[in-house]
Amino acid sequence: MRYNNFIYLLNDSLEKKDIQLALDAVSTFQPADMAEVLAKLPHDNALILLLELSDRAFVFSHLDAEDQVHFAQHMTRATLAEIIGEMPSDKRVDLYKSLTAEQQDALLPALAQLEREDIRKLAAYHEGTAGALMSSEYVTLKPEMTVTEAIRTIRLEAPDRETIYIAYVLDDHRRLIGVISLKQLILAQENQIISNLMTKDVICAEVDLNQVEVVKMIERYDLIAVPIVDEHGEMVGIVTYDDAMDVVIEEANEDFLKAGAVQASSKINLKTAPINLLYRKRVFWLVFLVFGSLLSGIGIAHFEEIIAAHIVLVFFLPLLVGSGGNAGSQSATLMVRALATGEVGIRDWFALMCREVLVALCLGGTMAIAVSLLGYYRGDAAVSLVLALSMVGIVLLGCIIGMSLPFILNRLGLDPASASAPLVTSICDATGVLVYLYIASLILGLPV
Amino acid sequence: MRYNNFIYLLNDSLEKKDIQLALDAVSTFQPADMAEVLAKLPHDNALILLLELSDRAFVFSHLDAEDQVHFAQHMTRATLAEIIGEMPSDKRVDLYKSLTAEQQDALLPALAQLEREDIRKLAAYHEGTAGALMSSEYVTLKPEMTVTEAIRTIRLEAPDRETIYIAYVLDDHRRLIGVISLKQLILAQENQIISNLMTKDVICAEVDLNQVEVVKMIERYDLIAVPIVDEHGEMVGIVTYDDAMDVVIEEANEDFLKAGAVQASSKINLKTAPINLLYRKRVFWLVFLVFGSLLSGIGIAHFEEIIAAHIVLVFFLPLLVGSGGNAGSQSATLMVRALATGEVGIRDWFALMCREVLVALCLGGTMAIAVSLLGYYRGDAAVSLVLALSMVGIVLLGCIIGMSLPFILNRLGLDPASASAPLVTSICDATGVLVYLYIASLILGLPV
Repeated sequence: MRYNNFIYLLNDSLEKKDIQLALDAVSTFQPADMAEVLAKLPHDNALILLLELSDRAFVFSHLDAEDQVHFAQHMTRATLAEIIGEMPSDKRVDLYKSLTAEQQDALLPALAQLEREDIRKLAAYHEGTAGALMSSEYVTLKPEMTVTEAIRTIRLEAPDRETIYIAYVLDDHRRLIGVISLKQLILAQENQIISNLMTKDVICAEVDLNQVEVVKMIERYDLIAVPIVDEHGEMVGIVTYDDAMDVVIEEANEDFLKAGAVQASSKINLKTAPINLLYRKRVFWLVFLVFGSLLSGIGIAHFEEIIAAHIVLVFFLPLLVGSGGNAGSQSATLMVRALATGEVGIRDWFALMCREVLVALCLGGTMAIAVSLLGYYRGDAAVSLVLALSMVGIVLLGCIIGMSLPFILNRLGLDPASASAPLVTSICDATGVLVYLYIASLILGLPV
Repeated sequence: MRYNNFIYLLNDSLEKKDIQLALDAVSTFQPADMAEVLAKLPHDNALILLLELSDRAFVFSHLDAEDQVHFAQHMTRATLAEIIGEMPSDKRVDLYKSLTAEQQDALLPALAQLEREDIRKLAAYHEGTAGALMSSEYVTLKPEMTVTEAIRTIRLEAPDRETIYIAYVLDDHRRLIGVISLKQLILAQENQIISNLMTKDVICAEVDLNQVEVVKMIERYDLIAVPIVDEHGEMVGIVTYDDAMDVVIEEANEDFLKAGAVQASSKINLKTAPINLLYRKRVFWLVFLVFGSLLSGIGIAHFEEIIAAHIVLVFFLPLLVGSGGNAGSQSATLMVRALATGEVGIRDWFALMCREVLVALCLGGTMAIAVSLLGYYRGDAAVSLVLALSMVGIVLLGCIIGMSLPFILNRLGLDPASASAPLVTSICDATGVLVYLYIASLILGLPV
């Protein structure tokens, strides 16, 4: 509540044109917090305040794409060009991409030559690659420099660079030949030569590598940044640890939503998203899954006579069919996660399946004992046998389906994470119904 | 394959006691990669190689807890003490915690006084808090130092510190009064005083803060490290961005597994985990969920007569009941995610529920139209009406259950992520059966 009261007072001081009071009130705010405040103010007052902030380009970088575009439309072209000029290059190109073609054309001429070329170059990389994630602000050194010269270069370039803690050593063709940290430089003698100090086995990524792989490199080797090179080995950018962390969070959100059969988008805000957006993200899978359930219905219709003759079978239907779906969901969950973290690959399918069959038999066996006791109590020995056999078969089939589906989706070029619990459950339900009623019809038979 | 061949040759050279050849072969390896190689070698040869590595303490830090303990048991106490002395303090305490009480007692006397105290202090913090995650290696400065003195201090301390890019300014009582980056120092004049340069609004966390909150600070403010203070404002450690990233990945894995009703542990490796571990991680939920299915069965048994009279109802049972479970899983997924990212809180429950009811009515309405057409085709107008009404009711109830369950679990002090798709499905199934068959008995009635 106190936060809303603050926003109320802040807006009041802006209404009264007391800009200085508003600026004093927010003087200690971090850019991320300031962006949150701006998003809560009415647009016109937010814009007035934004333009007066000393770190406005950074605050602007932290706004949502939607708010950025809105503010951009209400600034003079010169102001917008100035802010864009000061933004980190990766944030800048994200904004550029969210503008319409007309807005892009209106903006470009206002920018300095270098910025224009930089935006054009970065905007050309495909979403989801290292190129689309990278920034073009990094410090480069020459191999023949001394430590003193290197530190002087870093000092000169520092204000404009995303990180100065790692510097990249390039040859005359801009090929990446080494990397040196500011820590190494600080610890070295002043007249040492960079080429003797630098690390020559550089961990780097190609510009079209999947962003998930780039992030894994940062995580595995605890890097501050990964240098990105093109197909000729020329350096074109860096991906920093903070962007990597954003990707990790975004990908985890998307996978999580997919596993719950919600169309993935890590950007839905439950509190503010329009109802029809929430509807659209969910209706596809719900309707699609109806077909799975229809298969179960058809299975049941096929065995209508045996059900009518042994109505006790219906009592156990949800239990048996549900257990298959649950076991299958578990298998799919473990498999999707293992594929996402890179712990297993497609080539491991057969070995994993053998292990899964063993686990499934243990799980099915445990459940069979429980359910057959129950079956004996509600029915007779024959029903009990039907239940035990069905349970083992259904759990086994469920696990095999749950484990295979992510692999099959991957083979078809789809995202294995689409093997959501509801999808696996629907498929397992249909096969479970068939297994159960088929076994029942074999053992119990129809009354004569 | 080539990797396995490499391991084979490496092991051969170790068998032949040609240590130098082995060392040359791995000389360009990063510690993380070297640890992976060691884990693949037979334990005795791996230990021989490990002890010869120049960066053995870092490689050792990258090993699994299990392998660390194993190697530790086969080293002399002096060697172990030396390696532990060189390990980063947060990794060191993790190892210490995975030793048995006897092993801990045997180890401590071999360590230097300072290391011993450091381990004891760090080991006292609860798992999952900032304290358990932090490292005690950071650079501290005094406010009255000049830039030259500060850089000299950093240079002296650099080899032992986890990061030297951020230095913390403490007063005489070790209270944190400011923070300064190496970037600021490099850009400043040599004779400037630290207290005039430093940032005084320090973003810091208390030692008992949940690790997830610490990680969110690093992510939000793009920090390299967060300083950790005790209840008196005295600085006790730092949490660095690379540890934060590990936590993000670990938490995402755990939530994902929970959502699939697998007992959470981000450390299961599907390829190598023993079968009985995989069995145990899954059997609890499977058996627990049987009770949910039993409720469905009891519901069905209660309406046995109406089913027997209108056997067509069974055909649509999986479809209706499944749709409720699927819609409920979607709601639970969205809600668990939103709670985990901090996008919504417990206080938003009512507002979110109102929105959810609207979405559910739209989804239920869409599905009702589809299913009533199908019902008219397979049955008659009355069946069609039963299906349409049931579908709206079941999807609505499913969404309400799916949305409420994470909140209820949270209120009970449990992890909202335990509201897995299989759990929600089981509960929705049972309520769906009751709704469907109750509506059917009202409209269709029993034959006279």
